[in-house]
Amino acid sequence: MAVKFADRMENLKASEIRELLKLTEKPEVISFAGGLPAPELFPVEEMKEVAIKVLEEGGKQALQYAATEGFIPLRKAIANRMNTKFNTDVTYENILITSGSQQGLDFSGKIFLNEGDVVLCESPSYLGALNAFKAYGPKFIEVPTDENGMIMEELEKILETTENVKMIYVIPDFQNPTGRTWPVERRKKFMEIINKYEIPVLEDNPYGELRFEGEILPSLKAMDEKGLVIFLGSFSKIFCPGFRIGWVAANKEILEKYIMIKQSADLQTSTVGQREVAKFMEIYDLDAHVEKIKDVYRKRRNLMLETMKAEFPEGLKYTYPEGGLFTWVELPSNIDAKDVMAKCLENNVAFVPGGSFFPNGGKDNTFRLNYSNMTEERIVDGVKRLAKVLKEFI
Amino acid sequence: MAVKFADRMENLKASEIRELLKLTEKPEVISFAGGLPAPELFPVEEMKEVAIKVLEEGGKQALQYAATEGFIPLRKAIANRMNTKFNTDVTYENILITSGSQQGLDFSGKIFLNEGDVVLCESPSYLGALNAFKAYGPKFIEVPTDENGMIMEELEKILETTENVKMIYVIPDFQNPTGRTWPVERRKKFMEIINKYEIPVLEDNPYGELRFEGEILPSLKAMDEKGLVIFLGSFSKIFCPGFRIGWVAANKEILEKYIMIKQSADLQTSTVGQREVAKFMEIYDLDAHVEKIKDVYRKRRNLMLETMKAEFPEGLKYTYPEGGLFTWVELPSNIDAKDVMAKCLENNVAFVPGGSFFPNGGKDNTFRLNYSNMTEERIVDGVKRLAKVLKEFI
Repeated sequence: MAVKFADRMENLKASEIRELLKLTEKPEVISFAGGLPAPELFPVEEMKEVAIKVLEEGGKQALQYAATEGFIPLRKAIANRMNTKFNTDVTYENILITSGSQQGLDFSGKIFLNEGDVVLCESPSYLGALNAFKAYGPKFIEVPTDENGMIMEELEKILETTENVKMIYVIPDFQNPTGRTWPVERRKKFMEIINKYEIPVLEDNPYGELRFEGEILPSLKAMDEKGLVIFLGSFSKIFCPGFRIGWVAANKEILEKYIMIKQSADLQTSTVGQREVAKFMEIYDLDAHVEKIKDVYRKRRNLMLETMKAEFPEGLKYTYPEGGLFTWVELPSNIDAKDVMAKCLENNVAFVPGGSFFPNGGKDNTFRLNYSNMTEERIVDGVKRLAKVLKEFI
Repeated sequence: MAVKFADRMENLKASEIRELLKLTEKPEVISFAGGLPAPELFPVEEMKEVAIKVLEEGGKQALQYAATEGFIPLRKAIANRMNTKFNTDVTYENILITSGSQQGLDFSGKIFLNEGDVVLCESPSYLGALNAFKAYGPKFIEVPTDENGMIMEELEKILETTENVKMIYVIPDFQNPTGRTWPVERRKKFMEIINKYEIPVLEDNPYGELRFEGEILPSLKAMDEKGLVIFLGSFSKIFCPGFRIGWVAANKEILEKYIMIKQSADLQTSTVGQREVAKFMEIYDLDAHVEKIKDVYRKRRNLMLETMKAEFPEGLKYTYPEGGLFTWVELPSNIDAKDVMAKCLENNVAFVPGGSFFPNGGKDNTFRLNYSNMTEERIVDGVKRLAKVLKEFI
């Protein structure tokens, strides 16, 4: 066959991790690999009532085509929620409904990136975002991080000396993969720098509401004076991912580009799905639901971290996440987490090796652990198995 | 603000038609402009039962993340249906579920097109596809058509003399915008040519099942010996569009690329939406539902065409579609359909001027009429109003 694909397809390889995740699907494997929410928390009974109500109150509209921008009551509910939770000042006209926040990542690449343009990101950063951007052929520059997230002095150094920086991609709250959170001071400093250089910021915030201790921190979008911050939100972690409903919040000039791209990409997100999420928020208490999720995840985090402390070999570094879904482990530099993973699979426990989270490679001595998707019993059991394998390596 | 967008954004303009469609949304306007199915045919009651069943039988799975490829029972049902209706020979492993077939169009551009590559299409062709491809910066070459669709001698001439043809986009059944269908002989000739030049073909087939008279014609995919045809299907016109569920059917080597792109674009299509469509097909009779749709649309087509014949000024050319949603009118070459449209809006009747369906411009003396979305009474009334305006111009 003489079929020729576009050059961009060479940037994309079948994800190693996707192949690996397939191996972890056997029921006997205790998997800390994925980023799945706990399905036992999904409001299944409530959604039956919601589905009926949506079809009874406007079945014809729910099953028909609708506006690209999204269902206005849902956009309004999202704007209100953002303003309440994250201190922003947006209206529904700043909101585009997307098919999960992953779609917002892809659109951002499409809107901002020519081949060879520079994207800055935290080192490490979310693999799914890096893959979405790769289709547009950018160069990645990784900004060094510490236990408080991106290091602002390093960011400034890079901006001073780099041309063609078209976009900065960050996850300031309970970052994927590290679980780290930027303190308020660092957020302020970041926005000072951004305002100086006037570069669009993609603030990816799927986990911000899942804070186990203390107050939710103000989002970058809340400090955005020049309309440079594009906020990506999602219902996947605070409600459920099966509807694939997320959103982009941006100033109108920028949002207009996202709407145009959405129109050509898939016309609109599911009408019935949008109406169901809006209806759930109308007749149930999403805040109460989020509290339930937090209670369960807090316990799981505690248990995972306690078991790690008790069982892991001495001297390993790992993050203590204040929310979200992940912790991040650093092994001695001579150990490749992929080798550890191979051994772990033999013992029916799994995680994601960290190397893929560094767009320019390296740091193969790291790995990510998820604690949201396994029961407490399996968490203890799995961490013990993992610790046993680690002791063989160290 | 110093924000710089990607160069590709210059290829995209806010759609004229989108702006125009907004003007047609007032209830007093009789609109033949959109391509919306008749909402009174949507199976609202049935979908209540379906929604409950999906949540009762597997609520946790329905609300969770799922495989990028799609829900296997839905992929199987689609493969079976394609083989039965369109004479293909595919299995579920040839099927990727997409967010409407619009997403399949966008992915095709992403997978095949470098900037400056050539896309062949019928002249005129579906505007939404052209817009999706435009984001990847191709050149369009329009293959001349007659009342039986693409002219094969013209296609051959173009292929003989053109380099870098990366993709041929066609709608052989009840084409949007013209309503024309390619006879079997022409399909065979097309596949002969394609097999010689080995160029991927995008066969867009959202309307094929909506044939009002005679037998469904075999799809190009059914005659595809070399795995060159990529078939795009959709539930939007045979079921309802609100779920945004379509599919790509292709050979495995090509489908693997679509799966990779789907993964980075939005991970997967709505889990619950996919399960609901599959459940509807399992417990209800989609064939019977399609018959109901055809009965209604056949009457509407008849009525529209009869009224056009009785009321339109002498000598206008228009297609007599054997199925689908549209007819296509050609005015004398000195009349611009946009001027007619402006006058029509004053009289509360609307259509889509044809110029935008020609990627390289021209043919402003054409327009598209939709007959699926208006009641019989409004069809007669609207065509009369339209005829009155046309008589002022001719």
